[in-house]
Amino acid sequence: MTDIHMIDAAAGRLSGHARRTPLLSSPFLDEIAGRPVFVKAECLQHTGSFKFRGAWNAISALREAGESKGIIAFSSGNHAQGVALAARLQGLPSVIVMPADAPAIKIENTRALGAEVVPYDRATEDRDEIGARLARERGLSLVKPFDMAEVIAGQGTSGLEIAEQAAEAGIDRAQVLVPCGGGGLTSGIALALEARAPGFTVHPVEPEGFDDVLRSQKAGTRQRNERLSGSICDAIITPTPGDLTWPVIQRLCGEGFAVSEDEALKAMALAFDRLKIVLEPGGAVALAAALFRPGEGPVIAVASGGNVDRAMMARALSQ
Amino acid sequence: MTDIHMIDAAAGRLSGHARRTPLLSSPFLDEIAGRPVFVKAECLQHTGSFKFRGAWNAISALREAGESKGIIAFSSGNHAQGVALAARLQGLPSVIVMPADAPAIKIENTRALGAEVVPYDRATEDRDEIGARLARERGLSLVKPFDMAEVIAGQGTSGLEIAEQAAEAGIDRAQVLVPCGGGGLTSGIALALEARAPGFTVHPVEPEGFDDVLRSQKAGTRQRNERLSGSICDAIITPTPGDLTWPVIQRLCGEGFAVSEDEALKAMALAFDRLKIVLEPGGAVALAAALFRPGEGPVIAVASGGNVDRAMMARALSQ
Repeated sequence: MTDIHMIDAAAGRLSGHARRTPLLSSPFLDEIAGRPVFVKAECLQHTGSFKFRGAWNAISALREAGESKGIIAFSSGNHAQGVALAARLQGLPSVIVMPADAPAIKIENTRALGAEVVPYDRATEDRDEIGARLARERGLSLVKPFDMAEVIAGQGTSGLEIAEQAAEAGIDRAQVLVPCGGGGLTSGIALALEARAPGFTVHPVEPEGFDDVLRSQKAGTRQRNERLSGSICDAIITPTPGDLTWPVIQRLCGEGFAVSEDEALKAMALAFDRLKIVLEPGGAVALAAALFRPGEGPVIAVASGGNVDRAMMARALSQ
Repeated sequence: MTDIHMIDAAAGRLSGHARRTPLLSSPFLDEIAGRPVFVKAECLQHTGSFKFRGAWNAISALREAGESKGIIAFSSGNHAQGVALAARLQGLPSVIVMPADAPAIKIENTRALGAEVVPYDRATEDRDEIGARLARERGLSLVKPFDMAEVIAGQGTSGLEIAEQAAEAGIDRAQVLVPCGGGGLTSGIALALEARAPGFTVHPVEPEGFDDVLRSQKAGTRQRNERLSGSICDAIITPTPGDLTWPVIQRLCGEGFAVSEDEALKAMALAFDRLKIVLEPGGAVALAAALFRPGEGPVIAVASGGNVDRAMMARALSQ
């Protein structure tokens, strides 16, 4: 299981390859929230989301273990791009298994980053079966989107940066709000802060109607989302907390928040106006909770990704 | 006159107060330009532009000299916000003299950052006369937008960061493209790089039709713009190169570029898509030149500001 030593090792592997993303703030956002707000701008990471961190670390670890013929992943989104670029930069081929009906721009971007995209029909084909066959035939190693110890360790490096940057800003107690899908980023940051900033408490943030983690926290056992589509926050919709991530969330995190789509769009517009960064709806949910939910003391919102199409941003800006 | 020692001193004053803005890149932009493109994201500086650097340094220097009853500035834009916030953070009152017909949002933002806004009628009143009277009556010190040695030194700190960040990226020769109005940022960066990255050459970038610096370079003497309005790149429109900035530009800069409004809008959209940052048209002209003008070897484009209204960004994204 992921621990602080694995996160430190991941930071060593990422050094000089991943960006140290800035911790941003604006007096205008402090005014709205009624308390100091800081934003960890992971949208500025390579490929526009934190996913590059976990992908880079997992692929590095596979190479060090000599399992390095190539990489395979399942994703239509941020994980696909993170894996594609990290693999290419480490000189490995990558295969991304994607639904054939994924948006053309996502398929193009993933190909442009050097991956071979293998489309499958969601209605008639089994993604896992296709992936397993390709992995077997070509000797590829699977990099999972969140439920994998080295992926969680990679995402946790953003937590190390938060601890350092908050200390530089003189903050020793804070709520840390993290957009939460499968929980890789949330659990990685929680593990990093447990060791390096024990006065900080991590809270997962989800879209309303897709709050499996919040309901799991309340029930004390893992709950599932009824639906897996129909949210503009598609980047952070997963069926249920992961086998590896859930125990960490249960042990370390404070109760989560669920925000509406309108609140996510408003947070996108305010990040545009006041921080000059581009967020996707799923990447803006933690900022939405920081701005629109009451709380005491400093709050650090992780802005996990910015891969939004132009039409969706126009929608946010026209609110 | 500004020299590298003043820029180093400015960096000392700004440490812990200004942001060290990231140097961003994307393989997609490299592909468009046909060479490696790096973007110094000054839009992520406090108040959304590089102007905070010069304002902070000039106000610090005035305080150190004991001339610290308050600050006055003339500006309807980025300089106003930079001065207002820097003065407030240093515990000084500030007065910003602004045209009464400036956009309401700019007046509101400047007030919200703690400044007293004194409106004047462009048709009937003399800005300089109003400013001189207020300065005299209240003992305020003027912070000019570019033609002031400590302002140029402050802007030059972004050049120090470029030299360090480029060295970390292994770059020892590059074109450095800088959006150029009065030339404070351009000359400050040129002075910093002369000392710290002598393999780099700075080139000013202006909007077509407002290319007083480029025409001055070609003529060998200072030229004036015929018009001072009618450009979406309003943040970088000034009558003529400054008394202090022009000799630096003439001595150190390579020939400039002029880009069209369409090219600036396209660069804004590409910065949105690929870097996840928000640029204003004037802040995007250097990136436009990096992407759409031929050149050899690495190019570093300074993205000088991101204070764009939502409608203008919607226009850029709908191209």
